[in-house]
Amino acid sequence: MKHLAKEHFVYSMDKDNPPALTVSSGEQIKVDTYDCFENQIRTEDYEMKSMNWEKINPATGPIYVEDAEPGDVLKVRIDDITLGEQGVMLTGPGLGVLGHRMEDFEVKILPLKDGKVVFDEKLSLPLNPMIGVIGVAPEGEGVNCGTPDAHGGNMDTKRIAEGATLYFPVFQKGALLSLGDLHAAMGDGEVSVSGVEIPAEVTLTVETLKTESISYPMLEDGEGAAAIVSKETLDDAVDTAVEMIIDHLHPRLDMSLSELTMLASAAGQVEVSQVVDPLKTARFSIPRYVLEAYDIQLF
Amino acid sequence: MKHLAKEHFVYSMDKDNPPALTVSSGEQIKVDTYDCFENQIRTEDYEMKSMNWEKINPATGPIYVEDAEPGDVLKVRIDDITLGEQGVMLTGPGLGVLGHRMEDFEVKILPLKDGKVVFDEKLSLPLNPMIGVIGVAPEGEGVNCGTPDAHGGNMDTKRIAEGATLYFPVFQKGALLSLGDLHAAMGDGEVSVSGVEIPAEVTLTVETLKTESISYPMLEDGEGAAAIVSKETLDDAVDTAVEMIIDHLHPRLDMSLSELTMLASAAGQVEVSQVVDPLKTARFSIPRYVLEAYDIQLF
Ligand SMILES: [Ca+2]
Ligand SMILES: [Ca+2]
Ligand SMILES: [Ca+2]
Ligand SMILES: [Ca+2]
Ligand SMILES: [Ca+2]
Repeated sequence: MKHLAKEHFVYSMDKDNPPALTVSSGEQIKVDTYDCFENQIRTEDYEMKSMNWEKINPATGPIYVEDAEPGDVLKVRIDDITLGEQGVMLTGPGLGVLGHRMEDFEVKILPLKDGKVVFDEKLSLPLNPMIGVIGVAPEGEGVNCGTPDAHGGNMDTKRIAEGATLYFPVFQKGALLSLGDLHAAMGDGEVSVSGVEIPAEVTLTVETLKTESISYPMLEDGEGAAAIVSKETLDDAVDTAVEMIIDHLHPRLDMSLSELTMLASAAGQVEVSQVVDPLKTARFSIPRYVLEAYDIQLF
Repeated sequence: MKHLAKEHFVYSMDKDNPPALTVSSGEQIKVDTYDCFENQIRTEDYEMKSMNWEKINPATGPIYVEDAEPGDVLKVRIDDITLGEQGVMLTGPGLGVLGHRMEDFEVKILPLKDGKVVFDEKLSLPLNPMIGVIGVAPEGEGVNCGTPDAHGGNMDTKRIAEGATLYFPVFQKGALLSLGDLHAAMGDGEVSVSGVEIPAEVTLTVETLKTESISYPMLEDGEGAAAIVSKETLDDAVDTAVEMIIDHLHPRLDMSLSELTMLASAAGQVEVSQVVDPLKTARFSIPRYVLEAYDIQLF
């Protein structure tokens, strides 16, 4: 299995980034990742004034996938996520939903112990290991790794986890996949702008699908199938995700648009990934029991 | 136990509505409800042109709760929901996320069978019985039962279900509680504007709390504690719900605002109730294991 070290990273997803690794469609890869602060914060007495704010959201890559062409879909199965030993969280002025009420930066180190995240002596949180930043090179200019969009990027979506499969639109030859910003735990919304940030080792299998193109990333896991859409407003992200899923499923089903919309209303779930990045990210998810009842293949 | 028949209903929550029933704080009540179409649609060949659109969202009530005063909190425990025998869904031009693509009204009858909602011969949906409309008389002018706001109303929130406890701000003497618009099933978002609409019988226990006032309804159930906020945009609803929960919990915890915000980011969940009513409704939820770890009482 090929292995890509964390020192091979980018701060933006960009067609002009030279590949750090080339793989075949179907190949499995192990990828090491820095945390979103490039591992700068190791202790709670860290002096925030020494922080280099240029070193944010490094994404390991890019990985060039042979025979991925614009218009294809890149299928990425997340086979394994192995986390580092401690996580870090950060709050501060202007960051997140409560940023207007924060006067100083505050840093918290959260050790992992017995399969949980130790928050304090009273509370340990269940782990939900997930990938915050994962995407391909976008269509035009490069996009900073802190921003999510049609190419993926900083989607901060908790269902991007071990066992999930992602589908990305391919915009550039070789797709140019990069990933980083792992979280040991994060709730939907990521309201402080920080998950439990942690270095990690991710094992992925990539595959090029010569199929219909898609406009935003999609995800499939034990819960079901979702479109993951990032827009200026949550309202727009939600509406676009709903319409994308309905339009994707409609040709695969023998029912009217009205009936499918009723099904989406009765069983589909609007979910929020994050409300704190330069664009906001929402998903619309159809449960697995619906996919199974109608024997729907996503691609 | 007192019983309020569905024929005692209102189309708006309004301080000027005369009470249909008076109860004491602590009393249990059984309330019958029409479906949101006032039971007009009973078969799939229903002629939509015969529909009376004035008869929408009747809410059984209002119930006057003795010693509820403005500034108090009305606690409402949902003890039981017993559903009718069949549900109905509706789509049409201008309704819901796909309304711009609908040319005609379509009606679907969904029988309940073996504890599921029969969607078609291939798919039966799990039941998630819930109350779409529940609220008190608002502060100023009356509010149509189709609109959610600080007084509750058409919140279309799937966690307003059997076993949940709601907390409403009291704006008027006696609170004037009303409810209706039950759903046999609905996903977060309610994207077509219709759940599986159904008549029902709801058993509630009401109690007046002489405590700090709240600005929007809150909910407590097995999952945790949530604020339920309705605003013009989902973005605003989410931000307000997050800040409301954090401000409610902060005085109950021995941690800084920064640390609580980190906890909210790592473990709190932004959830979407509905995106199709005159205001949109979101919730922010803190899991039960957090409430238990710190032994937090909501009131
Ligand atoms: Ca593993
Ligand atoms: Ca992130
Ligand atoms: Ca992060
Ligand atoms: Ca409703
Ligand atoms: Ca309804």
